Amino acid sequence: MRAQNEGQAFAHRVRVYYEDTDAGGVVFYVNYLKFMERARTERLRAAGYVQSALADDNNLLFVVHSLETRYRAPARLDDELQVTAEVVEVRGASLRFQQQIHRIEDGRLLCEGMVTIVCVRADSFKPRSVPPEMVEALTGAVTAPAGE
Amino acid sequence: MRAQNEGQAFAHRVRVYYEDTDAGGVVFYVNYLKFMERARTERLRAAGYVQSALADDNNLLFVVHSLETRYRAPARLDDELQVTAEVVEVRGASLRFQQQIHRIEDGRLLCEGMVTIVCVRADSFKPRSVPPEMVEALTGAVTAPAGE
Amino acid sequence: MRAQNEGQAFAHRVRVYYEDTDAGGVVFYVNYLKFMERARTERLRAAGYVQSALADDNNLLFVVHSLETRYRAPARLDDELQVTAEVVEVRGASLRFQQQIHRIEDGRLLCEGMVTIVCVRADSFKPRSVPPEMVEALTGAVTAPAGE
Amino acid sequence: MRAQNEGQAFAHRVRVYYEDTDAGGVVFYVNYLKFMERARTERLRAAGYVQSALADDNNLLFVVHSLETRYRAPARLDDELQVTAEVVEVRGASLRFQQQIHRIEDGRLLCEGMVTIVCVRADSFKPRSVPPEMVEALTGAVTAPAGE
Repeated sequence: MRAQNEGQAFAHRVRVYYEDTDAGGVVFYVNYLKFMERARTERLRAAGYVQSALADDNNLLFVVHSLETRYRAPARLDDELQVTAEVVEVRGASLRFQQQIHRIEDGRLLCEGMVTIVCVRADSFKPRSVPPEMVEALTGAVTAPAGE
Repeated sequence: MRAQNEGQAFAHRVRVYYEDTDAGGVVFYVNYLKFMERARTERLRAAGYVQSALADDNNLLFVVHSLETRYRAPARLDDELQVTAEVVEVRGASLRFQQQIHRIEDGRLLCEGMVTIVCVRADSFKPRSVPPEMVEALTGAVTAPAGE
Repeated sequence: MRAQNEGQAFAHRVRVYYEDTDAGGVVFYVNYLKFMERARTERLRAAGYVQSALADDNNLLFVVHSLETRYRAPARLDDELQVTAEVVEVRGASLRFQQQIHRIEDGRLLCEGMVTIVCVRADSFKPRSVPPEMVEALTGAVTAPAGE
Repeated sequence: MRAQNEGQAFAHRVRVYYEDTDAGGVVFYVNYLKFMERARTERLRAAGYVQSALADDNNLLFVVHSLETRYRAPARLDDELQVTAEVVEVRGASLRFQQQIHRIEDGRLLCEGMVTIVCVRADSFKPRSVPPEMVEALTGAVTAPAGE
């Protein structure tokens, strides 16, 4: 699972638009969760998985089970952000993503999150194991944990 | 249902929350369209029509064909707004809603819109006539236009 | 702090509109956080506090420090939801809200959250104690915990 | 004003995420307006103008005066879209943008819009002329229309 970090971890870039801000003059705190989802989606895409195709072709859907976020500093209009999405745990049907959002200009950490996703069958919403090849693709060379 | 048009038109109340505002300190202009949709939805509900049931039971879906809005003054955090949704034209498969948003406190007109909705079959997305009883319910006494 | 629960806790009603849903056919999980904020805002309003006025007149702003949510079952289009917002802890500048979202029709618990808010000075964003009268208003008769 | 089209017009790419969709399984029609704003913002940025800096340094703000959209076909989850933002008219304080959204995969036109923006003073919200150099930057070589 470390393999991914021995180099450059995956990161997705996001620009802050008016739609993301609120009357406080900064990004509305709920919207960081949208940025985090975009990064998870692009993390999957970079690994070769497109969610709409997974649903149609593989009867596989991801649903969010729970999440935690901690806000450290606000992002502002026109800021460019870097959003990471690292899989830190795979256990049966669940994937745990650790995510951080930094402002690119000054490198400041703005928000951190931990998001637990459950893999379900698209037709029945019943949990199903994360496919081993997906675990491998998302966590680097370490395939053993998938067999836990 | 006649009574409603003679005098007081249907109106839906909306409160402005942080989620609705942007860094300009006012409601993000795109969000007035959400308020207008809530009012149309409640206009239908007041007439006895619930969209999720229409799709499931009557194979009927409404899709937005086009819209126009004109912004006159901004709404602010904590404002309470009154949103109207008046059907001003029914033609075959299409319904045209005229909508206005006023601030309740000072009665000021903030935003106006004209939204054209098309009634389609939920299974094929093919246009279908607006059911005559719905036309009647939405337009008051004027049932003749439905038969055009 | 118990006082509030001896009877009916505060709850805010929310209707699910298209704007709240996603292609999964249910409420987009991020949007439950908007519902929770609406309930907190109405909780404050019921206690006599309007956020825009607090900022302008009292130099007081609430910012979200961190949050946790746990998703249990999905809400669907046209569902009516009941959202609670109970202050379970006040400590210096921070307020901790426990929140639950139930579907009114069947009483099912859909989502739970814990949201920590920090009270800051609107001009400097420096933390400041939650005013004692606000603590009292939000937590019922029990003012002592505010002095902890 | 033609100059811009003699070659490649400006276009901004947008990916469709879950946040953009609704229970109809397609992009929520209101959200195309967010995509259009992102494209206008990037059109300005490409011309050297950043809105947050314009407000702070030049006392200049853009506000949306009115808009029209026409929906032609729906975008779906994971679609990649190309959004144009062409200035088709500059008149005193107002800028008129013509915008189109195409799906990249099949080149299909999904949505068209016409958005009128007014340039105002950030401190007073009073209209002010669009700066001539901005007109030039946004409309290509043709500066004469700015003097109309």
